[in-house]
Amino acid sequence: MSFDVLQEKIKAKKNPTVAGLDARVEYIPPFILKKHTDRLGETLEAAADAVLEFDCGLIDALAEVVPAVKPQSAYFEMLGWRGMKVLEEVIAYAKSKDLFVIADVKRGDIGTTATAYSEAWLGAAQVGGTSCSVFDADCVTLNGYMGSDAIKPFLKDCTERDKCAFVLAKTSNPSSVELQDIVAGDRLVYTVMGDLIQRWGKDTQGKCGFQALGAVVGATHPSVLKELRRRLDRVFFLVPGYGAQGGTAADVRFAFDELGRGAIVNASRSIMCAWQKTGRDGADYQDAARAAAEKMRDEIKQYVTIL
Amino acid sequence: MSFDVLQEKIKAKKNPTVAGLDARVEYIPPFILKKHTDRLGETLEAAADAVLEFDCGLIDALAEVVPAVKPQSAYFEMLGWRGMKVLEEVIAYAKSKDLFVIADVKRGDIGTTATAYSEAWLGAAQVGGTSCSVFDADCVTLNGYMGSDAIKPFLKDCTERDKCAFVLAKTSNPSSVELQDIVAGDRLVYTVMGDLIQRWGKDTQGKCGFQALGAVVGATHPSVLKELRRRLDRVFFLVPGYGAQGGTAADVRFAFDELGRGAIVNASRSIMCAWQKTGRDGADYQDAARAAAEKMRDEIKQYVTIL
Repeated sequence: MSFDVLQEKIKAKKNPTVAGLDARVEYIPPFILKKHTDRLGETLEAAADAVLEFDCGLIDALAEVVPAVKPQSAYFEMLGWRGMKVLEEVIAYAKSKDLFVIADVKRGDIGTTATAYSEAWLGAAQVGGTSCSVFDADCVTLNGYMGSDAIKPFLKDCTERDKCAFVLAKTSNPSSVELQDIVAGDRLVYTVMGDLIQRWGKDTQGKCGFQALGAVVGATHPSVLKELRRRLDRVFFLVPGYGAQGGTAADVRFAFDELGRGAIVNASRSIMCAWQKTGRDGADYQDAARAAAEKMRDEIKQYVTIL
Repeated sequence: MSFDVLQEKIKAKKNPTVAGLDARVEYIPPFILKKHTDRLGETLEAAADAVLEFDCGLIDALAEVVPAVKPQSAYFEMLGWRGMKVLEEVIAYAKSKDLFVIADVKRGDIGTTATAYSEAWLGAAQVGGTSCSVFDADCVTLNGYMGSDAIKPFLKDCTERDKCAFVLAKTSNPSSVELQDIVAGDRLVYTVMGDLIQRWGKDTQGKCGFQALGAVVGATHPSVLKELRRRLDRVFFLVPGYGAQGGTAADVRFAFDELGRGAIVNASRSIMCAWQKTGRDGADYQDAARAAAEKMRDEIKQYVTIL
């Protein structure tokens, strides 16, 4: 349990970043999409096959640079069951390349429903006497609005299967203030959520000192990163909002502890769509993605030393 | 846009209830499961085929009684892409029987990701110049923790395609107090969320007076139902927690306005698993489900008159 596995992979690659796999159809290099639409027409099936080729190509390009990938469920759901089939294949392919896989699903529901979600994403479904793995990611993102009922079933799978989860605390988007920054006594709502995350996960601490339940804290709020890093010393952070959304290396340094541990920074579009800036129409999407991931790693290394 | 379509269907059947389709494998009558595992072994494929048969059988049994069904995504996701294929089929089948379909997905994410989710569940995905419907439900459930960024893309599809959505306000589960009942100034967090829901949806009011953005408020909190019904006069309520979770007909009457409008009450297990109480091992699951749905309708009718 806990974030031991991820922290080891970060250390091995000296890179605390994760590449998001958020393939909107228009992010796919035209030559890939065309290959599949020529064969199957402008269909969900063609788009799903194109996403599979693009994501696996990105994984090949990035596997030596980043320790983790984060497929975003929405971009697979929007292609229906064919997209979900591709998501299963992308997760399995990334794991075969020894990458840590964070399924960005932001699920949050109660009781037996949370159990079903956990079985889907981290655990296994029971069919009669047989236990069947489904998406089988290493880690998921969760939404804690419904309280511990929505989280506990995942903690069980984290403990039993050496997995982990991130719960939304302070998100990177502009409208996060509408609920998360409401004043509640001497705290803000995101601080209340942060405290709940630390409490819910307290019995799941790993060797590295971090519990199996982490928090999502956006790169676009450096002062919040600083405040929550101090307050939640056992909580691993997933930090979205780097690059396209405005977060910088100078901002995200506050997510890390003094040993350069305890956080992983995500970038999606700046890596996936790097090919759109080279003027070569996508033919070089792998080189462009790899170069963007190396650049991000090197920017963050200027501020954070991974010991 | 708005809840006009649902309110019409409720009126036609004189029944403000929705049947949840939350098929855990153990909820499926053994004779159905066995038929498929005999053929395919104890596999996700067999479970998915069994869920399809069970859910379609329930839809056949309930179509004349209830105006709506609410498939819960978790129970399909836990069977992987095969489960999602069944979910597409179940939604299409329910719509063919003229039922209103609420996809209980509780999604919440930002910007382009929320757009992708909305395309998946309410709208359509663009593949080149072609618009491809995906799950195409009539309505979804959402989580507003991330603020309006997570909601607005859905409002666009609601407006353009005559659909609607419910956002979690006060949920029916015990741990909902942990965040939702935190005091924030002169309100509680769930009241803050309720006010946001009314504000976010204000430009989407339909003929029936309700906006396209509704709220989830649990049957287990009658005093909250009363308070929020008064406070949020344009907001349609989805009320879970009836039956198995403890909510009664006397409790849920507070969800309705003086014309018996503005709410729909969900029951899942008490209808789906009604066969477990007749001692006939599931052979009568359709009759049992229909009888349970009629009983629930009649209980609520004692307190609520649908004009």
